[in-house]
Amino acid sequence: MARLYLINGPNLNLLGRREPEIYGSTTFEQFFEGLQQRFPEVELHYFQSNHEGELLDHLHAIGFSADGIILNAGAYTHTSVALHDALKAISSPTVEVHISAIHKREAFRHKSLIAPACVGMISGLGLEGYALAIQYFLNQLQS
Amino acid sequence: MARLYLINGPNLNLLGRREPEIYGSTTFEQFFEGLQQRFPEVELHYFQSNHEGELLDHLHAIGFSADGIILNAGAYTHTSVALHDALKAISSPTVEVHISAIHKREAFRHKSLIAPACVGMISGLGLEGYALAIQYFLNQLQS
Amino acid sequence: MARLYLINGPNLNLLGRREPEIYGSTTFEQFFEGLQQRFPEVELHYFQSNHEGELLDHLHAIGFSADGIILNAGAYTHTSVALHDALKAISSPTVEVHISAIHKREAFRHKSLIAPACVGMISGLGLEGYALAIQYFLNQLQS
Amino acid sequence: MARLYLINGPNLNLLGRREPEIYGSTTFEQFFEGLQQRFPEVELHYFQSNHEGELLDHLHAIGFSADGIILNAGAYTHTSVALHDALKAISSPTVEVHISAIHKREAFRHKSLIAPACVGMISGLGLEGYALAIQYFLNQLQS
Amino acid sequence: MARLYLINGPNLNLLGRREPEIYGSTTFEQFFEGLQQRFPEVELHYFQSNHEGELLDHLHAIGFSADGIILNAGAYTHTSVALHDALKAISSPTVEVHISAIHKREAFRHKSLIAPACVGMISGLGLEGYALAIQYFLNQLQS
Amino acid sequence: MARLYLINGPNLNLLGRREPEIYGSTTFEQFFEGLQQRFPEVELHYFQSNHEGELLDHLHAIGFSADGIILNAGAYTHTSVALHDALKAISSPTVEVHISAIHKREAFRHKSLIAPACVGMISGLGLEGYALAIQYFLNQLQS
Amino acid sequence: MARLYLINGPNLNLLGRREPEIYGSTTFEQFFEGLQQRFPEVELHYFQSNHEGELLDHLHAIGFSADGIILNAGAYTHTSVALHDALKAISSPTVEVHISAIHKREAFRHKSLIAPACVGMISGLGLEGYALAIQYFLNQLQS
Amino acid sequence: MARLYLINGPNLNLLGRREPEIYGSTTFEQFFEGLQQRFPEVELHYFQSNHEGELLDHLHAIGFSADGIILNAGAYTHTSVALHDALKAISSPTVEVHISAIHKREAFRHKSLIAPACVGMISGLGLEGYALAIQYFLNQLQS
Amino acid sequence: MARLYLINGPNLNLLGRREPEIYGSTTFEQFFEGLQQRFPEVELHYFQSNHEGELLDHLHAIGFSADGIILNAGAYTHTSVALHDALKAISSPTVEVHISAIHKREAFRHKSLIAPACVGMISGLGLEGYALAIQYFLNQLQS
Amino acid sequence: MARLYLINGPNLNLLGRREPEIYGSTTFEQFFEGLQQRFPEVELHYFQSNHEGELLDHLHAIGFSADGIILNAGAYTHTSVALHDALKAISSPTVEVHISAIHKREAFRHKSLIAPACVGMISGLGLEGYALAIQYFLNQLQS
Amino acid sequence: MARLYLINGPNLNLLGRREPEIYGSTTFEQFFEGLQQRFPEVELHYFQSNHEGELLDHLHAIGFSADGIILNAGAYTHTSVALHDALKAISSPTVEVHISAIHKREAFRHKSLIAPACVGMISGLGLEGYALAIQYFLNQLQS
Amino acid sequence: MARLYLINGPNLNLLGRREPEIYGSTTFEQFFEGLQQRFPEVELHYFQSNHEGELLDHLHAIGFSADGIILNAGAYTHTSVALHDALKAISSPTVEVHISAIHKREAFRHKSLIAPACVGMISGLGLEGYALAIQYFLNQLQS
Repeated sequence: MARLYLINGPNLNLLGRREPEIYGSTTFEQFFEGLQQRFPEVELHYFQSNHEGELLDHLHAIGFSADGIILNAGAYTHTSVALHDALKAISSPTVEVHISAIHKREAFRHKSLIAPACVGMISGLGLEGYALAIQYFLNQLQS
Repeated sequence: MARLYLINGPNLNLLGRREPEIYGSTTFEQFFEGLQQRFPEVELHYFQSNHEGELLDHLHAIGFSADGIILNAGAYTHTSVALHDALKAISSPTVEVHISAIHKREAFRHKSLIAPACVGMISGLGLEGYALAIQYFLNQLQS
Repeated sequence: MARLYLINGPNLNLLGRREPEIYGSTTFEQFFEGLQQRFPEVELHYFQSNHEGELLDHLHAIGFSADGIILNAGAYTHTSVALHDALKAISSPTVEVHISAIHKREAFRHKSLIAPACVGMISGLGLEGYALAIQYFLNQLQS
Repeated sequence: MARLYLINGPNLNLLGRREPEIYGSTTFEQFFEGLQQRFPEVELHYFQSNHEGELLDHLHAIGFSADGIILNAGAYTHTSVALHDALKAISSPTVEVHISAIHKREAFRHKSLIAPACVGMISGLGLEGYALAIQYFLNQLQS
Repeated sequence: MARLYLINGPNLNLLGRREPEIYGSTTFEQFFEGLQQRFPEVELHYFQSNHEGELLDHLHAIGFSADGIILNAGAYTHTSVALHDALKAISSPTVEVHISAIHKREAFRHKSLIAPACVGMISGLGLEGYALAIQYFLNQLQS
Repeated sequence: MARLYLINGPNLNLLGRREPEIYGSTTFEQFFEGLQQRFPEVELHYFQSNHEGELLDHLHAIGFSADGIILNAGAYTHTSVALHDALKAISSPTVEVHISAIHKREAFRHKSLIAPACVGMISGLGLEGYALAIQYFLNQLQS
Repeated sequence: MARLYLINGPNLNLLGRREPEIYGSTTFEQFFEGLQQRFPEVELHYFQSNHEGELLDHLHAIGFSADGIILNAGAYTHTSVALHDALKAISSPTVEVHISAIHKREAFRHKSLIAPACVGMISGLGLEGYALAIQYFLNQLQS
Repeated sequence: MARLYLINGPNLNLLGRREPEIYGSTTFEQFFEGLQQRFPEVELHYFQSNHEGELLDHLHAIGFSADGIILNAGAYTHTSVALHDALKAISSPTVEVHISAIHKREAFRHKSLIAPACVGMISGLGLEGYALAIQYFLNQLQS
Repeated sequence: MARLYLINGPNLNLLGRREPEIYGSTTFEQFFEGLQQRFPEVELHYFQSNHEGELLDHLHAIGFSADGIILNAGAYTHTSVALHDALKAISSPTVEVHISAIHKREAFRHKSLIAPACVGMISGLGLEGYALAIQYFLNQLQS
Repeated sequence: MARLYLINGPNLNLLGRREPEIYGSTTFEQFFEGLQQRFPEVELHYFQSNHEGELLDHLHAIGFSADGIILNAGAYTHTSVALHDALKAISSPTVEVHISAIHKREAFRHKSLIAPACVGMISGLGLEGYALAIQYFLNQLQS
Repeated sequence: MARLYLINGPNLNLLGRREPEIYGSTTFEQFFEGLQQRFPEVELHYFQSNHEGELLDHLHAIGFSADGIILNAGAYTHTSVALHDALKAISSPTVEVHISAIHKREAFRHKSLIAPACVGMISGLGLEGYALAIQYFLNQLQS
Repeated sequence: MARLYLINGPNLNLLGRREPEIYGSTTFEQFFEGLQQRFPEVELHYFQSNHEGELLDHLHAIGFSADGIILNAGAYTHTSVALHDALKAISSPTVEVHISAIHKREAFRHKSLIAPACVGMISGLGLEGYALAIQYFLNQLQS
């Protein structure tokens, strides 16, 4: 049974409270339960932290055995060379997800430091982006 | 029945011939037939042109009635303000797809001029990116 | 009788349909008929294309005999070195017109590649900018 | 009867003496008299100063009652944030006029700091640019 | 009774030990006690951390109920998009304080990433800047 | 008795008339009278000019005897090297005040040329910023 | 018998009419006939278009069988990522030719987007540059 | 008898009071008297203003009859396009003088906007720079 | 007996697992034991963390009594102003070590934010760089 | 009999030893002998130096009588303003040759400082580029 | 008796031959003899080289005993950090001279790398600039 | 017996005379003798030149047989592409040494053009840096 890890970075714990006009009003925990029900054929794990160091520790811990990582690094997307290095160092493939379209927001969000270390990116398709990433890994693992 | 348009820009007619180590060896026409079979609940159309002007004409023609547009503008992604304007001008929503991860290639491919006029972007997930975009529109139209 | 050519570039065929809050709701064809009535002393011609190549072909065809060219190159204003070269190569004088004020919009619209090859620019004065350009050529031809 | 104000910035008092190969040999005062005769239906006023502060004072004085302002800010076009702020602060609409085509001269003249605070720009059409701006305001006031 | 939170970022725990020629020799704890005595009408809280993640957690915890936040983010001022996002996400107003004048130091300190998410900034007025920020909130809450 | 000078630069005479959604509707003269009443222990002076040269002359005149200068240089903040030099040349300390948060507005307002010649900056705290600057000088003069 | 293709981009059809002080007064058709006579041992083909899309279509059509391509992309040299991609995608080797020395003209002509996809460049040697490129291919094919 | 004009810009009236470690403690008036005695064969005039507009007015007044102008524009050297235009517009030759070495101070002083409109520059040679400029004009006028 | 601290930043705990073609396959713990045996005359300590905040806390704790610090800040080298400030704030001298040659890798690794706060740098000499830094401190302490 | 000078700059004496995968394994001396045999109708001279000053001296010595100069300035292409000046100062025409395609290598090789002082450039056509340059001069001298 | 050294850099040996419309037709040797006659009270020496290394060697040889150095480094002005270091290392004061006005020529001549290591600069005053520099040193040595 | 070459670039012959507060007062010759005594097991050679060409010649001469090169290229570090190419062309490994910490000095010293062609860099550790580089090569040759 495939094991996929959803990892969210800083401030994404506020989902539902933070700027709902951009991110919607569902909490991520609620959304994640729905995901588990939609994809019963996958073992889905969820981790969130506001701490760059904890995200690194977690990637180190799961990044050599996971079948796929779905990472929304939030603001660290744009500032963390350390996350880039961690993703390069581990062996599990990672898909980068952004709920909002980062290229439509402030200029400092247009640049993803982690993109060069990821398989690809899904951006701007809302929470559904996480589901599409799961779907991507499922298709990959089947073929 | 939902109508979705897949539109490919310059050089994508060479798919299968061009740099297969980056893009794979399937022609897009073969791939598109498979898509139609996978998504029988959608009316799928396909258009490709190497001419920026023809892409504009086509977007004008279908962009006020389509339920969704899936656009891989190829090299014009990085140079065409006119495509940006066309996407802004029409009313159908567009998802931008790139077969390869544009942020992992030459620097001049990191900037998408059309991103600000699209709902979102799927990049680096291979031909499967088109299928995920179709899936996105299906989910949107259902909810 | 003076011969003037109004040439519109990409997406301007959508005038009246596209972003009316910026460009107004009159189609250019309607507006052009009015212009012909306001300026009966001039032979006015109109050409529009979304194709950069067709704009070049047209400039080559009329650019050695026209008394004046009024060019709104739309998005190609900001990306087309070829139009710049064509305007330099022909002998008819050209006035650049923009319906909206290009310096008040996105930064990538602030730079006109064709400006160095034109007599001057009228920007931000709405459709009336075309009429003022005609007036300019009339005054020039009279003096 | 419409009241329009022509305001010229630094060094434009030298018109006719300064670099005649660029600006022609008519003094602005002579030209202005001709304008008054061509447009008897408008109350035309003229003000020139080399002092940025006097230009600001004058804009404050007339900028809440004028029907239109035609401003050639000369060199201050490229350096004065204060003029930008003054134009934003007043309520009369302003059209920016440049005798020569600023985009064809030195690079430091390509950027207009006041453009974002003006309705639009007429550039490169010689002294006739002032007349076209008057014509613009007349048309606006009539419709 | 108004509740205000003083939050200090990295290295500010060294105040009194670190570069005293720039920051003075008082520890922040001593200074904070003085503040509590000067402003008995306010409930003043203090938090310091060298961990970006702890600063985020703390802002999340108090940022929906505090009457005001006074934040000296230290070096994170110049590098943390995550703090910017947290300040945008919470509802309490924040005033940014810097003990030294950041615009007089190294160029990399001239840019504050959090400024766009704060009400305003007090910089260069020494430890007294914190007191002025408290005074500001008091005045705001009274009016 | 301490002597403090409030100096306002270009367009600030329009306060109450100019863009009230940004600056409020109180005139500065009204506000200044209130300041004099709130701080009877200080001799407060006020000067405003739209002329960079008059601001320089005034700084030269009072800048060797004033106990403190509170300067809102308006647009000249971003363009005047001459004000920077004047502030460096005089001996009275200066605090820079901005009513709105300059770092939240257009990019050209993010850079203060006078900041390196001032003690510090208060920005974005509205008219109250002037009062806080007075308070700062009072505290400094007492200790 | 070796097959070589000379391909000219936008505005080069005006050769002989356009800016003769830069490009000379021979038409390219006249020059091409001379080339065919000078190199009877080669099968020489000529294609010109002002349309970026037609250039792409043509490169696709001949680019897998030609022994060599001699491309003067004109203005598209500096703006077309699509031509770059087409040259990368095809298998025939391409030499880039410019009649004038592009590094001695405007700065925007100094950068060739297609250079990274070509074998090499001949620039500034006039129409003779085409002959030298033919000579190059002949030598290559012989050795 | 040759007529030369020494013109000083903003803050140079403070010479002797301002930052004496950079500029020395002699007032310019004292120095100018000495110059008149050292060069009795020249008619020397002196003008100083902190007002950009007054400097422009003065250049207009004397710039068509003076045999030479020696201009230290102070801070306006680095910000005034208007002075550049005035110097271009007048017919008298100008030598730019800076007391301190502008290329050894802050980066914003390295760029002289007026240099392209002057004969040459003398920088960093102290007050003696003015004398050398007079000597230059004397030699020029003699040969 | 001299006390030296080796401090490693993010992802360096993966040494031996991460990209061995760049960093080799020895774990740092194994290497460190070897170092202790090679330098019995020094008291060597080792600390590693992926958390920027823990690195700051640790530097604060040992940075006023250590005889020398050998810091490989990993990715934080390129992003952490906070580490720069901590190194400036403490009194122990620090030598910066990089296993690989940072100037031969991606451009974002060419800039070290901590270099201005360190004595010097050893880069590209592999794990042996740590030994050379120890040797440096030994020599310094003896002379 | 035409006299042409081939001049090679730094490190080109290593040809055949240096990076043969880029430059091939023939020494330039061997290649030059072949050239002399292929072009018996020309007097061919060869000079190589690693010293910028010797290259300048040599250009001065032959640059007023040579019929043509073929210069591969090697690394000095990208750094030597002095070579640019020398080529401008002499009267013999120069063609710039690069064995490899400089626009396909590191970014610092894309800029040629000497290009503005040369007739044109041949780049990327291997050692054959020298022969083509000789051919160019022969054709020029005959016509 | 004061000893002054005039040192000229690359290509200045061509003075009289090179671009006379910019530099005049006098050779420097002729001019130097005239200088010696005009300043009999000084021991004047002259050195020219096209070799950066020889200029360095010469500065080392005379730079600890000369009373003044007058250096026209020609093109090395804009590229030589080594000359900058040599001038910083020696103890004799240096005045930088340029015959033409470097700020009126190509942009790459606007930056002097040696200016921060010189007392000051005389630019654009022709060969007379050398005489003014001698005069400067004479005045300095007398006072 | 290992053969190592120490090579010093421009101005390093002044060591002991030049800016002793940065580089110390020992001459390099004295220091080199000490090195030879400290490392009797190595054959140490020393070469210094102010001439970029001589440095290139020397590298060519010894760079295919030396066991290691220790290069302090001085100012040429920041300007010489030719040295970069020479180091790439030869086969002996090179370690770059800087006596002072180049990243703590002027910005133009932060960039090393030769770093991409060296094994690694030792910077800021004084003359001891040379000894550490020797130690590095000894360790490498032993293992």
